[in-house]
Amino acid sequence: MSRFWSEIVETLTPYTPGEQPRGQSLIKLNTNEHPYGPSPKVIDAIRAAADARLRLYPDPQATALRTAIGQSHGLGPDHVFVGNGSDEVLAHAFAAIFQGKGALQFADITYSFYRTYCRLYGVEPELIPLDARFEMDVPAFVGAGAGVVVANPNAPTGIALGLEQIEQVLRQNPDVVVLVDEAYVDFGAESAAALVPRYDNLLVVQTLSKSRGLAGLRVGFAIAQPQLIDGLLRIKDSFNSYPLDRLALAGAEAAWADREWFEQTRDQIIAERARMVARLAELGFETLPSQANFVFTTHPNCSAELLLAELRARGVLVRHFPQDRIAGYLRITVGTPEEGEALIAALAEILPRH
Amino acid sequence: MSRFWSEIVETLTPYTPGEQPRGQSLIKLNTNEHPYGPSPKVIDAIRAAADARLRLYPDPQATALRTAIGQSHGLGPDHVFVGNGSDEVLAHAFAAIFQGKGALQFADITYSFYRTYCRLYGVEPELIPLDARFEMDVPAFVGAGAGVVVANPNAPTGIALGLEQIEQVLRQNPDVVVLVDEAYVDFGAESAAALVPRYDNLLVVQTLSKSRGLAGLRVGFAIAQPQLIDGLLRIKDSFNSYPLDRLALAGAEAAWADREWFEQTRDQIIAERARMVARLAELGFETLPSQANFVFTTHPNCSAELLLAELRARGVLVRHFPQDRIAGYLRITVGTPEEGEALIAALAEILPRH
Repeated sequence: MSRFWSEIVETLTPYTPGEQPRGQSLIKLNTNEHPYGPSPKVIDAIRAAADARLRLYPDPQATALRTAIGQSHGLGPDHVFVGNGSDEVLAHAFAAIFQGKGALQFADITYSFYRTYCRLYGVEPELIPLDARFEMDVPAFVGAGAGVVVANPNAPTGIALGLEQIEQVLRQNPDVVVLVDEAYVDFGAESAAALVPRYDNLLVVQTLSKSRGLAGLRVGFAIAQPQLIDGLLRIKDSFNSYPLDRLALAGAEAAWADREWFEQTRDQIIAERARMVARLAELGFETLPSQANFVFTTHPNCSAELLLAELRARGVLVRHFPQDRIAGYLRITVGTPEEGEALIAALAEILPRH
Repeated sequence: MSRFWSEIVETLTPYTPGEQPRGQSLIKLNTNEHPYGPSPKVIDAIRAAADARLRLYPDPQATALRTAIGQSHGLGPDHVFVGNGSDEVLAHAFAAIFQGKGALQFADITYSFYRTYCRLYGVEPELIPLDARFEMDVPAFVGAGAGVVVANPNAPTGIALGLEQIEQVLRQNPDVVVLVDEAYVDFGAESAAALVPRYDNLLVVQTLSKSRGLAGLRVGFAIAQPQLIDGLLRIKDSFNSYPLDRLALAGAEAAWADREWFEQTRDQIIAERARMVARLAELGFETLPSQANFVFTTHPNCSAELLLAELRARGVLVRHFPQDRIAGYLRITVGTPEEGEALIAALAEILPRH
């Protein structure tokens, strides 16, 4: 608390990211990082860009990256916005689109940063409860003044909506923007980017942090019709002309170009997810059907807090959200098969003792 | 214009950065980039950090970098805030400190992004005119409800205030924050960071873009007492948990550690500035006394617009601001002696024809 803070600072509840331990050898299944990392071509591109040209500002329009991302969807660069991680893209979307318009609808259980943005931008959250199976009540997403945010797949449940359900939300809300946060879409859900030409109220947000193995590089993007993109650009150009540094641009362009590495490692993660769900079931865990690179799982005989602490004591980090309805669950990132087996071994040791 | 924009988007006047030409061989003296670039140790550090660890999120607290910057000033990391370029740091300062409090005072001729932030955060600008010699009217900076912003040295004039004048502004304004933007301080002015322990209303902002040759890496920081830093952190953690990627952190840490490269290249730039001012005087230019890595200069017989266009035609980029009182001036970055001579040769060719 300081007498110099603006009024809003006191009202904020900043987001708490998962632990990033330093200098310890831990099995890190707590922040949904990619177990295999980026394509070797990304490393090469970054090393090649790391030279005296760092003295020069990066391209403030990020034209090459926006062009490449647009092309994958048959769209021009005017349909693409890029930012310093998808969190920055989401923040600018709240500023450019949602603020000052009344209530914003999103699920009661979803990415908790949406509530943080609501406070930062003075947007009123209207929480729509997930049903008993943690599925979205699609018909209930209607009538919000500011708009709708849907995470697909949802976090931390991992449950995905089909494109026809996304389209239903879009059709129910023709006069407000529907933001579809697709941070995890590549692991089994279908992107709504294909709907962009038909819906001027659709804003799709993705990230290179998860499926491209680049959490450490901070690159996210949005796809929408040019008028919505223009609104985001006006906010960005009033905030920071150059959100992506030269190395992030070079790495992101290389990551986007290497489709083969992306597909191969994604398939490995999807296969390991299935294996992990089966192994967890052998130990009595009940796991929600995940289309993400994590699973959300609960055990009938053992509290999530206890499992979290006992796993931590054995060098395995997972994530727990002490929130109503999901406090009994752990969110566990899908890592390598070796990491998965270490997790299973630790759980097998913990469970019989409790 | 879109029916989906929030009200504020239409009111914005985004900042226009200097041209970043692609794929042309131009002499680029338009955006105050460092002619020698970062220390070779920065390149090494970035290349060493470019590996599979990019799959992991960066340290959201940037503890190593904040500790190193603090140590140079005899302060702890709790006195340091870092962001994605000093523009992001400035933006968060407007949100955390200035918004919702009435008028913010700054010079009528200064970094134009301050007015852009005023619109973005709904802050009322109160412009205090520079005097006829483009110097700051220090006693006039008093009584603002939101606070004061001083660029030292000022841009685009290059004129610096002494520390006793900065201290006078601080003493005149004990109940509001005085933000001292020191983007160019290393080229001849004195940093107000030394005053931080004595003034709880002081926020000093610096960047690695200029004197560390890292415009392409996007790293800026603020120094203040911990309560002010906490306010910035609360905004940052409600906006983007990880504004600095792993490569930017590694490069910035290495740049901060290599004091020798910093001092040596800074001295070269200062020497070249003196040489350039003398060479410009030979051609009849009148140049303001600069403590920055650029000069602000005017010619009695030739308009700045014409010089800008004719220099452009000869492959030399400089910057011109079509603003009252300074429309007759050009802002020219101090580059290498070779770049300086190319500029002088082009001007020597242009001037006799007009």
